[in-house]
Amino acid sequence: MAETEIMAQGGVEAIMSCKGGKNEAEENMAAWLLGIKTLRIQPYHLPPLGPHDVKVRIRALGICGSDVHHFKNMRCANFIVKKPMVIGHECAGIIEEVGSEVNYLAVGDRVALEPGISCRRCRLCKDGRYNLCPEMKFFGSPPTNGSLANKVVHPANLCFKLPDNVSLEEGAMCEPLSVGVHACRRANIGPETNVLIMGAGPIGLVILLVARAFGAPRIVIVDVDGVRLSTAKNLGADGIIRVSTNIQDVGEEIVQIQNAMGSGIDVSFDCVGYNKTMTTALNATRSGGKVCSIGLAQSEMTVPLTAAAAREVDVIGIFRYRHTWPLCIELLKTGKIDVKPLITHRFGFSEKEVEDAFETSALGGNAIKVMFNL
Amino acid sequence: MAETEIMAQGGVEAIMSCKGGKNEAEENMAAWLLGIKTLRIQPYHLPPLGPHDVKVRIRALGICGSDVHHFKNMRCANFIVKKPMVIGHECAGIIEEVGSEVNYLAVGDRVALEPGISCRRCRLCKDGRYNLCPEMKFFGSPPTNGSLANKVVHPANLCFKLPDNVSLEEGAMCEPLSVGVHACRRANIGPETNVLIMGAGPIGLVILLVARAFGAPRIVIVDVDGVRLSTAKNLGADGIIRVSTNIQDVGEEIVQIQNAMGSGIDVSFDCVGYNKTMTTALNATRSGGKVCSIGLAQSEMTVPLTAAAAREVDVIGIFRYRHTWPLCIELLKTGKIDVKPLITHRFGFSEKEVEDAFETSALGGNAIKVMFNL
Amino acid sequence: MAETEIMAQGGVEAIMSCKGGKNEAEENMAAWLLGIKTLRIQPYHLPPLGPHDVKVRIRALGICGSDVHHFKNMRCANFIVKKPMVIGHECAGIIEEVGSEVNYLAVGDRVALEPGISCRRCRLCKDGRYNLCPEMKFFGSPPTNGSLANKVVHPANLCFKLPDNVSLEEGAMCEPLSVGVHACRRANIGPETNVLIMGAGPIGLVILLVARAFGAPRIVIVDVDGVRLSTAKNLGADGIIRVSTNIQDVGEEIVQIQNAMGSGIDVSFDCVGYNKTMTTALNATRSGGKVCSIGLAQSEMTVPLTAAAAREVDVIGIFRYRHTWPLCIELLKTGKIDVKPLITHRFGFSEKEVEDAFETSALGGNAIKVMFNL
Amino acid sequence: MAETEIMAQGGVEAIMSCKGGKNEAEENMAAWLLGIKTLRIQPYHLPPLGPHDVKVRIRALGICGSDVHHFKNMRCANFIVKKPMVIGHECAGIIEEVGSEVNYLAVGDRVALEPGISCRRCRLCKDGRYNLCPEMKFFGSPPTNGSLANKVVHPANLCFKLPDNVSLEEGAMCEPLSVGVHACRRANIGPETNVLIMGAGPIGLVILLVARAFGAPRIVIVDVDGVRLSTAKNLGADGIIRVSTNIQDVGEEIVQIQNAMGSGIDVSFDCVGYNKTMTTALNATRSGGKVCSIGLAQSEMTVPLTAAAAREVDVIGIFRYRHTWPLCIELLKTGKIDVKPLITHRFGFSEKEVEDAFETSALGGNAIKVMFNL
Repeated sequence: MAETEIMAQGGVEAIMSCKGGKNEAEENMAAWLLGIKTLRIQPYHLPPLGPHDVKVRIRALGICGSDVHHFKNMRCANFIVKKPMVIGHECAGIIEEVGSEVNYLAVGDRVALEPGISCRRCRLCKDGRYNLCPEMKFFGSPPTNGSLANKVVHPANLCFKLPDNVSLEEGAMCEPLSVGVHACRRANIGPETNVLIMGAGPIGLVILLVARAFGAPRIVIVDVDGVRLSTAKNLGADGIIRVSTNIQDVGEEIVQIQNAMGSGIDVSFDCVGYNKTMTTALNATRSGGKVCSIGLAQSEMTVPLTAAAAREVDVIGIFRYRHTWPLCIELLKTGKIDVKPLITHRFGFSEKEVEDAFETSALGGNAIKVMFNL
Repeated sequence: MAETEIMAQGGVEAIMSCKGGKNEAEENMAAWLLGIKTLRIQPYHLPPLGPHDVKVRIRALGICGSDVHHFKNMRCANFIVKKPMVIGHECAGIIEEVGSEVNYLAVGDRVALEPGISCRRCRLCKDGRYNLCPEMKFFGSPPTNGSLANKVVHPANLCFKLPDNVSLEEGAMCEPLSVGVHACRRANIGPETNVLIMGAGPIGLVILLVARAFGAPRIVIVDVDGVRLSTAKNLGADGIIRVSTNIQDVGEEIVQIQNAMGSGIDVSFDCVGYNKTMTTALNATRSGGKVCSIGLAQSEMTVPLTAAAAREVDVIGIFRYRHTWPLCIELLKTGKIDVKPLITHRFGFSEKEVEDAFETSALGGNAIKVMFNL
Repeated sequence: MAETEIMAQGGVEAIMSCKGGKNEAEENMAAWLLGIKTLRIQPYHLPPLGPHDVKVRIRALGICGSDVHHFKNMRCANFIVKKPMVIGHECAGIIEEVGSEVNYLAVGDRVALEPGISCRRCRLCKDGRYNLCPEMKFFGSPPTNGSLANKVVHPANLCFKLPDNVSLEEGAMCEPLSVGVHACRRANIGPETNVLIMGAGPIGLVILLVARAFGAPRIVIVDVDGVRLSTAKNLGADGIIRVSTNIQDVGEEIVQIQNAMGSGIDVSFDCVGYNKTMTTALNATRSGGKVCSIGLAQSEMTVPLTAAAAREVDVIGIFRYRHTWPLCIELLKTGKIDVKPLITHRFGFSEKEVEDAFETSALGGNAIKVMFNL
Repeated sequence: MAETEIMAQGGVEAIMSCKGGKNEAEENMAAWLLGIKTLRIQPYHLPPLGPHDVKVRIRALGICGSDVHHFKNMRCANFIVKKPMVIGHECAGIIEEVGSEVNYLAVGDRVALEPGISCRRCRLCKDGRYNLCPEMKFFGSPPTNGSLANKVVHPANLCFKLPDNVSLEEGAMCEPLSVGVHACRRANIGPETNVLIMGAGPIGLVILLVARAFGAPRIVIVDVDGVRLSTAKNLGADGIIRVSTNIQDVGEEIVQIQNAMGSGIDVSFDCVGYNKTMTTALNATRSGGKVCSIGLAQSEMTVPLTAAAAREVDVIGIFRYRHTWPLCIELLKTGKIDVKPLITHRFGFSEKEVEDAFETSALGGNAIKVMFNL
């Protein structure tokens, strides 16, 4: 088998190579996505450690919907996997080595990893909106290798120490939590914001937890699936509404939603992204409120956008997150958020288990978060 | 002819009656919309002056697109004209009488009138977003009578004194200007905001003037009509782009627009409201920028909303304005904005001229703002 | 005894008269401040009910520090009591009569009263900053009569219905709570804001409760009085620091405070207003943080303002509140805030008890909130 | 003479050495501050060029007040010069060499230099408030060497290309302009903001120019010096007020200032930092307005801070600037700001001239900006 050379992030200017064939005992192994539904555990050569980097032994990694898209289609939205790539990005681990300039982390520290490395030089980075950096290198987003590996090299400033009472699995959950934190920050959720959530999948549930932690007094969540709604209810939703997939029902359903809320809806999160979910969100939200668009199911949407705009309902876009890990860890440490109920399945790091895990996540069903223990 | 009793705003708790038949010399006359394209000049009885009201002799009134909708269809969006209504709302005049508690205006003052009376008691009014007040009574928006009349009674705090160098016609132009001011405020236009304007109709042109006055360094405006674009160029647009009505051309046209801009588009204003104009706005705006939705041509839109949201392009809704008159008057007084070129046609206040004026405005063509001199 | 005519707020344009002498059974009685430490219960004639007003039977009223200033000095800051005035403004009661236009309140409703009536016509009112309205008429702030009376007439939109599980005393506590809510809103307190509070008096304690309800993860409170600090600890402060009155100790005390916090101080509230408390606040707050100035002990302050400004520590001013009652009631209803421990003393509405109550409040000591049950 | 080794910024991880004695023709020379009022032109060894750095031939450099403080006192505020340091930081020049990763600048490009290098890894950097970075390395702020040198090595992302119609001297002026831009941004200056400026020195004048460019409708400027006020008048101030240094005069002077303004003062900039200037600013600003604190003359101030806070006049702190160069260049390119009148003196780069230049700047008098042409 020929040697496959792959560019990767890690140390910022580093090159990592994936050498097939030799599988030395000490070699760093990773889950490489080679083709549609084809994952192989193969060696992953790490770059030398830069002065501001750390080397982390990955111990927990969750599967995200975007990982599943890569697994099933070799693409997610406009990101296309053109050559073998290490998959995965929601992770936590233990520091094995620290760069010469790193003085705030030490070998043995348990850390959660923020997966994206921005350029830190462009206008958006300087303005603090680094999640929009056009040169972002993000674990497992092609062509950048991910972190379903024994070890990775990563900038120390993107590794956040976990307190004793936060597990590595919970550390890995900081990544999906971060989506909720960023959305709730952008929507300015607080003790005066009644919240509607369209969709009770993993992101909808995370928004539920974070909006509650941000003080939202009343949260109603909507889905087509009764099981998901039960989960939402158990996680603290004040109201759950089961809806159809038929867009004709929007009017009636909004009445149900508004009755369940009991007062005006200040912010709606569309965690799905269908015409119907966005239409419901736009029409149900009070004048002067906001709709956050997170779900991306449809890229073209047919929605009553002007009618909402004429009531000054703003549509707020959400892309990943920026500097959310410290808050996520704080929320986990203090128990304001408990993410453990979201972890429904666990797998080890053998080739068989890796594929099983991805198949489980892809099936959906009762799987919310599928977690690897490496 | 029977007497027609019509509820109206004016003094807050007042009742105005329209008595047909007798046309006494001193009687107050108004242009009543009686049916589709049917306007009649008939008496309009004003309510008694409240302690915080003024009586204004209207001298200039401009025709708005919404007035034309009422004229042609007896409706505009969800507002339906169900009984005879005085039309018009963009106006200025001279104070004839002041209420007992009014100490900042005097008989003879030339004033511009803000046309909407909010309840001042609801949450939105208290929060300063009174334009969204659900109990708004707005000149010429059914069922509230308008101001194409010899005289109206209006709250003094909504009448703004004009300086000597601002004409009554310019005073009437404060209303469309206010739409631009409110939009530019909400979009936070300033010396760092490159602006794209979709549509070179009256609102697009007003946005152009206001965005320039707010310091926008570079403004590109887009339309299907070359004559309108020439006007925009004369009014100071840095770039003009003539586009097709074919949505297939969006990609190419965005390249043209971006080339004309020369750098990233921070804010786009869609002053039209078609699928194509909104699609162009959403796709052309830089990551982290904003699209303001003002035009309402289509109530259902098919647009790439999620793709824009995933670049954190927010869609900001605009409804009328709030407390914009003082700034409009300041911009006119200091010459930062010159609205005179927008006034293309003038008419008197006879029944014939009123209908001609509305027909002229409805035709569009080279008419930008059609103005009555009463 | 001669009749004393006093202008008062109530119905917006109303005149209320205080007629000495006749004390009819059905007459409305109020506590009139006649001179320094001189309070008399005398008749208080209410104005006719306006269409947007309600008449409220006052049942609970708390004494505020500003009331005590009036009682002791016939003045508070620049507000001087020049003629007999009904005292008091933190109140709740039961609706006895509703104006003709009021459709959202009914006789028998239990309501908390927001005490200030703004003009609703000036720029600040229109902008939603009505607490700064220069024409504010505020219960018990000279020359406007207060609400320590059997009954008052008040605008319905400033009376907020209490749910069954919120008592009238708790309703009266919405007023001091509102100071905390407004301050926490202006300071943008949330789950990422570590808070320092200078002063554990009634306002400091209220800030503590509200900042916690807004999600502040860590709150340290500072006072010279150990008993007050114990109360703060019982109310949930994460850290309490007892300090001296000697300004030389600021440096050492800041070290203690910062150690107690364990991480950067994002927002400090100075609820006292002495050189030392403000100096501590300015120097202890992290670069880019905020100091809220609430306490007014010293009008001229000698403080290291430029040094703080050079670290972009902003000083945020706080005056009363705006539209805070609904949130206060929500926080009480859901149990996010419990104000009952703050009510330390209760009095009836006899002349003797009224003076005793004010003396008790003036003494301070273990009195936090002194409440009347009328 | 012994060799003096000095740590410096430049390439981020670089070491620069100043070797006395040998003065080779090609050697890079710099103005070293060796002691109070002791400047020597000596060799300055640059670090190797990093991949993201450029080498710039400095051609214009202006003297800042902080440079003068270093020259006269070997300190400025808390920054103390403990060993020889190259002075200067307001500069522009021509690129001589570009690092391997720099693709947006080329040899020969004329650039203005932003003088501070932040760590780009801390919370404040990630939040976009990098001017507050605790690890900032800033030209000529001890212990970091400055840029009054033939050449410097600097990160490319802090070098901004000048258009043809902006001179190198104007490029150097981007630094003081940036202070004005950052202050006007933080104070949210726009077409609705009436501005008061305390102090007509270089920073006051720069605020004047920038506030005007941001659209401020009316600007009044105050100083004790008539000549400075004449300059301000020539630069476009709407009103100038000459005041005393006697704090007793504040009341009368505020009347004069408010009369000159003609309407409420929305934002005041204190560009001086004395008790009197801050007192004037606090008392003159309208309720709900803002005071920006920029001048640092007194570190302890005795001011009526609580009285201002009780009118919700916020005090906004200003420290340097963040990402202001592109806007400054835009304002210069389009002629919205003309800084040429501020450049009153020019000097060459001999030892004699360097000391003369600093003495000239230190004297004040009619010197506004003293510029080196290297």
